[in-house]
Amino acid sequence: MRIGIDIMGGDFAPKTTIKGSILAKKHLPKDIEIILYGVKKIITSILKKYNTPINTFNIIDCPETIEMDEHAIKGLRNNPNSSISIGIQHLSENKIDGFASAGNTGAMFVAGFQTIKPIPGIIRPCISSILPKDNGKVSVLLDVGANADCKADVLYQFGLLGSLFAQNIFNIKNPKVGLLNLGEEQSKGNLLTQSTYDIMKNNREYNFIGNIEGTDLFEDKADVIVCDGFTGNIVLKQAEAFYKLVKRRKIKDSYFERFNYEIYGGTPILGVNKTVVIGHGISNDIAIKNMIILTKNTVEARLSDKIKKTLTK
Amino acid sequence: MRIGIDIMGGDFAPKTTIKGSILAKKHLPKDIEIILYGVKKIITSILKKYNTPINTFNIIDCPETIEMDEHAIKGLRNNPNSSISIGIQHLSENKIDGFASAGNTGAMFVAGFQTIKPIPGIIRPCISSILPKDNGKVSVLLDVGANADCKADVLYQFGLLGSLFAQNIFNIKNPKVGLLNLGEEQSKGNLLTQSTYDIMKNNREYNFIGNIEGTDLFEDKADVIVCDGFTGNIVLKQAEAFYKLVKRRKIKDSYFERFNYEIYGGTPILGVNKTVVIGHGISNDIAIKNMIILTKNTVEARLSDKIKKTLTK
Repeated sequence: MRIGIDIMGGDFAPKTTIKGSILAKKHLPKDIEIILYGVKKIITSILKKYNTPINTFNIIDCPETIEMDEHAIKGLRNNPNSSISIGIQHLSENKIDGFASAGNTGAMFVAGFQTIKPIPGIIRPCISSILPKDNGKVSVLLDVGANADCKADVLYQFGLLGSLFAQNIFNIKNPKVGLLNLGEEQSKGNLLTQSTYDIMKNNREYNFIGNIEGTDLFEDKADVIVCDGFTGNIVLKQAEAFYKLVKRRKIKDSYFERFNYEIYGGTPILGVNKTVVIGHGISNDIAIKNMIILTKNTVEARLSDKIKKTLTK
Repeated sequence: MRIGIDIMGGDFAPKTTIKGSILAKKHLPKDIEIILYGVKKIITSILKKYNTPINTFNIIDCPETIEMDEHAIKGLRNNPNSSISIGIQHLSENKIDGFASAGNTGAMFVAGFQTIKPIPGIIRPCISSILPKDNGKVSVLLDVGANADCKADVLYQFGLLGSLFAQNIFNIKNPKVGLLNLGEEQSKGNLLTQSTYDIMKNNREYNFIGNIEGTDLFEDKADVIVCDGFTGNIVLKQAEAFYKLVKRRKIKDSYFERFNYEIYGGTPILGVNKTVVIGHGISNDIAIKNMIILTKNTVEARLSDKIKKTLTK
């Protein structure tokens, strides 16, 4: 398996991305090849600093870089030789099996959408996040920002994507899919969640358990929590805000430690034809290592194929 | 000043509502009259149990009760002699100056809307909640559930209502009004927040400071945080979920203690002609006492008159 990594992407790149790649290489089976996309001169000099032989990795020289806060579409248009542009291109040409970046999220999403393309039948690809449950397990929250405005059929499909993701990556059997809403009863909600409930309630594609409220987010009610990208973004950032408050107080608690999003690998873009993984901008080396492992697991699980198969059933 | 209290409303009513009324009576100046609305027989027997002379309060016998989970409109229609129905009626007839209940939120809101009526010019009255800031201050979040679907002009007006509320009840000078959004830049957001930003940005009615994100919710960025009722409800309940997680771990921290919504008095319905205060269902006696004090403060601040005056400027 060949996994491509954007070495230039992330708040602490390229040092942490290279360090994370070295950690992943040590951790993963030998037949997993890691290919580094970025400015070759920089990569080789950092590898030297870390006493790592240059031939540990394949390096693809990408002279341009899309900055973290650059406009996604302009960034891609103006930098056809950036690590993101070339990496995604190689993925589309089957030169690699998966590509991951902790860089410009928008650029990754747009490149994934335009070049790798949505699986036929997918209305809107989306991205997810993990929410730690108080019982030690996790749930999948989606969408968390790619689609700020959604219609009911889109939310319905997020339930399916989240369900397949939870099954195949987190080994959750028959995942409980909940619709994030302002009340438990079917009649509650805004126009969007009310009409989504109507479509979800009798479906045979996944295990819809009804509405869940903000108070249920960290309990064992749902394994997949569906919402529009606006709501999901705010839920996720509020969880980050709480983690910050806990840290500021120097409270040591193993559960709250699981709100440290730096330790997670990020999320695949759910619903595109191949494995494109978006990491957190603030990723440290451990997060980059986990992003590479998530990419490997997603390729290995053949998630895109399984989504495709489900849609053409 | 005459303040009416729904004795039958709240998860632990009528005991806590009577206990809270006794506490408030002791706390408030003598010229504040508290009038108890509820089943007279029950009220007198509990007052006796608490060794409180029956003439401490005026009691209005209301033989019917709207249950906590009853459908708001049906509950009001089927129980014209309930504490909520009669209390709101007395408020509209100037028999009392303010009315408060920790009972059925929907019924209170509908009764407030239909009988007390929105101030001319108010598109949609709303309800708010307090968010504790890490620096010891508070911010006002609105709407938190009364209006699940909002248009841009409605959110714009929430900024004004929140601003007047923060000024007159929390003594915050020139409150900073933030729009809850998924990014800081003006271009970010869903269709609703993007168009709201356009209206808010050059306004002369209040101090708009731009978008704020989920990560900023407990920082000193904004004093008033504007969102639709769907989003606000989820933010509020997620904060409650965190408080529950903290309590479950027996973490003692004075800041996190401020997430205990039982200690707050609730919220006036912002934008109606008189003072109608909605308390939390889970209110204990202290919360009921605080609800009565909030009602007194809101009447005293002449909040409704000030909103009216601002709208007709």
